[in-house]
Amino acid sequence: MITQTQRDRAIEYAWGLCQRIGLPLRAEERGQIEVTDLGLGEFETTGLIILTLTVTREIGIKLIALYPWQVCPEHRHPPQGDYPGKEETFRGLWGQAWLYLPGEPTPDPHARVPGHRRAYYTSWREVDLTGGGMATSPPNEWHWFGAGAEGAVILSVSTRPTDLQDAFRDPGVQRRTVIVEG
Amino acid sequence: MITQTQRDRAIEYAWGLCQRIGLPLRAEERGQIEVTDLGLGEFETTGLIILTLTVTREIGIKLIALYPWQVCPEHRHPPQGDYPGKEETFRGLWGQAWLYLPGEPTPDPHARVPGHRRAYYTSWREVDLTGGGMATSPPNEWHWFGAGAEGAVILSVSTRPTDLQDAFRDPGVQRRTVIVEG
Repeated sequence: MITQTQRDRAIEYAWGLCQRIGLPLRAEERGQIEVTDLGLGEFETTGLIILTLTVTREIGIKLIALYPWQVCPEHRHPPQGDYPGKEETFRGLWGQAWLYLPGEPTPDPHARVPGHRRAYYTSWREVDLTGGGMATSPPNEWHWFGAGAEGAVILSVSTRPTDLQDAFRDPGVQRRTVIVEG
Repeated sequence: MITQTQRDRAIEYAWGLCQRIGLPLRAEERGQIEVTDLGLGEFETTGLIILTLTVTREIGIKLIALYPWQVCPEHRHPPQGDYPGKEETFRGLWGQAWLYLPGEPTPDPHARVPGHRRAYYTSWREVDLTGGGMATSPPNEWHWFGAGAEGAVILSVSTRPTDLQDAFRDPGVQRRTVIVEG
């Protein structure tokens, strides 16, 4: 769960950052910002701020803002009937960020995973998204990502989102976020 | 056809513009810039500069740079076998730009169409892409777009590109660009 204050602060952070880096947003898009701690209750460490720019029947375009060293935990987008699952391409727009995919583990990876959740991070092939770095996570493949010391803004372009069906390694994750007063 | 000088100048323009507006590009992406006059031989008026960021089996992500008042002429992305044709979402990243779609014509549209090609522009429902404006052109639907006085940078996110199969209203258009010395 996150408090209303945490949520307001996160929206202000993401909105201000996009303005500052010259990414034009329409006023009404502020209301489309989703703030989630993924149910883990440690939002500043594990969570993400998502501005969905558009979702059609075929594609989704999102901006993802991360606090300094914040991570989105390991997950995959499983098949749904005839749909093989969401394919997702990430591109760094601002700040340092890294995407982690299955494969040969990168020595000395940059992102910081909370020690007590380390067991739920198994993909360690690091792709640097910094400065226009880009990579695609195929449908149903595990992946996670995190920001560096300044925080980050990442562009996510995908096939049709099925967010509520995302499968996370960490059994504590809940995709629906509870917001409490405070 | 365009000359090598026109091509070099266009690449320099698009590359410099992206740097100036803070859109991070990787050095090797400069080589992915396509400059096309669509065979009409009046590049500064009708043409476009395309930086393909990625194409997967499912999606395409491109940056499109336009010179001041330059237009991309009316076209559609036809079906190919089982594929219904490319769906394309446009979002303005910098400068003024407008997208034109079928439907109720907008009085006093902003973009400037070359008078001698006016007959090949039939869609006049204007969508303002300026300042984060966004719209989606469904598969096989006619559309065209143009920039304002400063030029523009547009983000194009689509389902799988099939560019060489694009159908243009103007019979003079050729999707493959001829580059000559000069």
